[in-house]
Amino acid sequence: MSPSAVDVDVKGVTDTTALVAPDPTTINALAAWRIKGAVPTGTAALSNSDMFKSPACFTKPKAKRWDHIISNEAKARKPSTLKGAAEYLKRPGMISLGGGLPSSENFPFEEISMKIPSPPGFSEEETRVSGRTVTAHKHDIREGRSLFDLEVALNYGQATGFAQLLRFVTEHTEIVHTPPYADWQCCLTVGSTYSWDSALRVLCERGDYILTEEYSFASALETAQPLGIRAAAVGMDEQGLRADALDEVLTNWDSKARGARKPHLLYTVPSGQNPTGATQSAHRRAEVYKVCQKHDVYIVEDEPYYFLQMQPYKAGVPPPSSRDEFLKILLPSFLKLDVDGRVLRLDSFSKVLAPGSRVSWIVASEQLVERFTRHFECSVQNASGVAQIALFKLLDEEWGHAGYLDWLIHLRLSYTRRRDDMLHACEQYLPKEVTSWVAPTAGMFHWIEVAWRKHPGFAKGLSHAEIEESIFKASIDRGSLLCQGSWFRADTNIPEDKMFFRATYAAAPANKIQEAIKRFSDALRAEFAL
Amino acid sequence: MSPSAVDVDVKGVTDTTALVAPDPTTINALAAWRIKGAVPTGTAALSNSDMFKSPACFTKPKAKRWDHIISNEAKARKPSTLKGAAEYLKRPGMISLGGGLPSSENFPFEEISMKIPSPPGFSEEETRVSGRTVTAHKHDIREGRSLFDLEVALNYGQATGFAQLLRFVTEHTEIVHTPPYADWQCCLTVGSTYSWDSALRVLCERGDYILTEEYSFASALETAQPLGIRAAAVGMDEQGLRADALDEVLTNWDSKARGARKPHLLYTVPSGQNPTGATQSAHRRAEVYKVCQKHDVYIVEDEPYYFLQMQPYKAGVPPPSSRDEFLKILLPSFLKLDVDGRVLRLDSFSKVLAPGSRVSWIVASEQLVERFTRHFECSVQNASGVAQIALFKLLDEEWGHAGYLDWLIHLRLSYTRRRDDMLHACEQYLPKEVTSWVAPTAGMFHWIEVAWRKHPGFAKGLSHAEIEESIFKASIDRGSLLCQGSWFRADTNIPEDKMFFRATYAAAPANKIQEAIKRFSDALRAEFAL
Repeated sequence: MSPSAVDVDVKGVTDTTALVAPDPTTINALAAWRIKGAVPTGTAALSNSDMFKSPACFTKPKAKRWDHIISNEAKARKPSTLKGAAEYLKRPGMISLGGGLPSSENFPFEEISMKIPSPPGFSEEETRVSGRTVTAHKHDIREGRSLFDLEVALNYGQATGFAQLLRFVTEHTEIVHTPPYADWQCCLTVGSTYSWDSALRVLCERGDYILTEEYSFASALETAQPLGIRAAAVGMDEQGLRADALDEVLTNWDSKARGARKPHLLYTVPSGQNPTGATQSAHRRAEVYKVCQKHDVYIVEDEPYYFLQMQPYKAGVPPPSSRDEFLKILLPSFLKLDVDGRVLRLDSFSKVLAPGSRVSWIVASEQLVERFTRHFECSVQNASGVAQIALFKLLDEEWGHAGYLDWLIHLRLSYTRRRDDMLHACEQYLPKEVTSWVAPTAGMFHWIEVAWRKHPGFAKGLSHAEIEESIFKASIDRGSLLCQGSWFRADTNIPEDKMFFRATYAAAPANKIQEAIKRFSDALRAEFAL
Repeated sequence: MSPSAVDVDVKGVTDTTALVAPDPTTINALAAWRIKGAVPTGTAALSNSDMFKSPACFTKPKAKRWDHIISNEAKARKPSTLKGAAEYLKRPGMISLGGGLPSSENFPFEEISMKIPSPPGFSEEETRVSGRTVTAHKHDIREGRSLFDLEVALNYGQATGFAQLLRFVTEHTEIVHTPPYADWQCCLTVGSTYSWDSALRVLCERGDYILTEEYSFASALETAQPLGIRAAAVGMDEQGLRADALDEVLTNWDSKARGARKPHLLYTVPSGQNPTGATQSAHRRAEVYKVCQKHDVYIVEDEPYYFLQMQPYKAGVPPPSSRDEFLKILLPSFLKLDVDGRVLRLDSFSKVLAPGSRVSWIVASEQLVERFTRHFECSVQNASGVAQIALFKLLDEEWGHAGYLDWLIHLRLSYTRRRDDMLHACEQYLPKEVTSWVAPTAGMFHWIEVAWRKHPGFAKGLSHAEIEESIFKASIDRGSLLCQGSWFRADTNIPEDKMFFRATYAAAPANKIQEAIKRFSDALRAEFAL
């Protein structure tokens, strides 16, 4: 049934000398370890990242244990009895009347094809000309045409994800982040919002506080609040979360006044933070990690915008000259710094391929990924097999790691252009007397500060909230929608000193961005009587 | 952008007189109300089932309110601030720099095609000959080719599901179940296991008991247990859950002895129950509903096997002569009996199309579906758009309701053949001295009772568990895997009087089923020294 290891085709291998001297941090070395292991291709076959990690991983020290922060709910989860019985299926000749899996003859999809871009022709126009159509059939595995097919993808799968895609995601994680401990694992999920919901349930109890940026992703806060989990706001600067502010909150934590134990979990968006667009420098990340070590805080890094790190905001900077250079100029993730195994990375295809895939993954130490897997088994089970096989065909069979990195470079340049369009419009239109901003270096958000105390209403006693709402409405009336900064406040008990509006450059085309900023500018001029 | 109402093509309309005299319970009437409403086709457009229900629905009384059973977690959920801002997007000419939705130019799928069966040629062989290939392009909506496309499906969507598929599911629900109250709603989810996990979080508190069959779906129990929710076992007979036993448990509930309030939630699988294969008759369902009314118990009906209701187990029964006859011979769901709006129906494509779609839906009163929607917004967000558009192309654009019912009839006959193969094998091989069973009328499970007290070990003092394990192992040693009945016990504190093994006829081909039953039979003969 399962093609042998040597059938595995390794895309993107441009330097075969790497096969001799494997370096796990480069894609050229991939062939060396990939070729050693076959992919389990049976229906609902078990797999884990260890099958796909390079040998170098296993020489590193193991992660710390996190028993003291695992929730009562997560502690109580046991492996499924029925899934345990699957062990017996490995015996040769065993016939199973056990699991209630439908027969693939009753899946009404014989083939699924997709037309996808051929690197380097990534644009819609180029794809129309040079795009390739790839097809998944129902029985490609049996017929030796592929490692993955509809018979498997359309049936039930394991919570960790289908081995075929888990392999790609594991390799990608090693290439980009090279975690500095041995027993890290990936597990596919159904989107980072769900990963975060699960993280709260696996790592927190009702009544806990979590630490997060003073302006934080609204949905992340709204996910925590109904679970009885409150946010302790940590001060920010133009690099996002401040390590000194984090230390201060933790050092001065007053359990009695707060009515809660000292927080043990930091939620942070290190790159292109939502809503501020701020990006933590490499130095800042190391500082934050050190503070988390000092106070034994576990880190959840939510990194949808990691590959939306952009070119510097100045003319004439050439794009990365190679994939290796591209990888080198990326900021280190917390996972890359994670000597303790104290990081849960929420990774996602939503901002780099398509949100509608609803396929994402987490990376953490084996102990925690095992608890998350038990959690997923009794909730979402696994990400859609239709989406998983589409991503496998695209990423593994067609593009390979090299093609995917090329795509990410293409995306970097595309977002750089969008960001530049936004900043040019702001420079052209926004009244400098009352607005200021820092050019974003990652993500999809531009965070515009408004000097609200210069608003005529301020002298008349209008509140921060009233002035913010007035500006928002004035912009709406002129046909331009930006988000109010106050919508993103982690702790609404702390009075707001500054005022911000969030504008995204991800969606609208350049001329619309320009027009929307012009309208917002008109609204500001009217409001501030400029 | 959005095609007008009259562009909507109604598949499966064979009787145009129905357009004059609409009867909401038949598919022929569908055109009459479908044609009245356009489908919202914008990116992440809001929709709900009311847009797609027949006018007759709204003349019925409204559901009861369920404030008294909604959990603290669910009560605390608020509508998203950011999603609230989307209201402004309806204003003509508004440019949004609000939501962080990626631009579709960066989705690397230009087209997705699928080869699917053409009714009535549903088999794999027929599909190879007469199957049709249908294609979703990126901009079909803009270009007037379809109501749904990849630009929309691959972006973020609403938690309720994309309107295009929500419409089909709503119509299907009305055709099959015709809920007897006005304000029912459907909401797509990512599989019934997740719907159940959500139901526990929306409707229960830690420490609660739920009511369920004494042998119950193991994963459903494993989902409840880590949330601190225990199962109160209700006695069963060959029709599954006993109404009198349910009344007894509720009437004699001793809150002090149990350490929990009287249960307010029943979890039941009415058709082809897992693991017993039992199916509640129409009369039984009405009795159970009445007991639930008496004790104000809310019902969760988990119905993955509803359309695996089979032909009677006797030779020469002709298949349903028409779609109308097929609909008439289906047992009434609890939803169909639900005058109070006290039923949450968990519906799913897993057993009738493909589990790998990870697309399912719930039906309940508006009040509860609204709470579930808030829950999904902060967890899974929405089912995969890739799977949703594949199902839309198949079900709505190609098959229509008529074709889908034809498929379900095809499946009914296919499962009837499989069930018959299983029963023939059992009749041929199993030792009658120690085995007995009831022919299943729905689902994928055959529940075999073993007269364990006749086992030689019984006289020697071996326990129920030891004898069950011994038989299980003896069968494994002969290469046949069946599930132990005890794996499915709702309350392990109650001593087991009987002994069962569960065998599925869903997956293995006929000759393998025969061989596996033969091996199990050999194991029994050896164990019982027959």
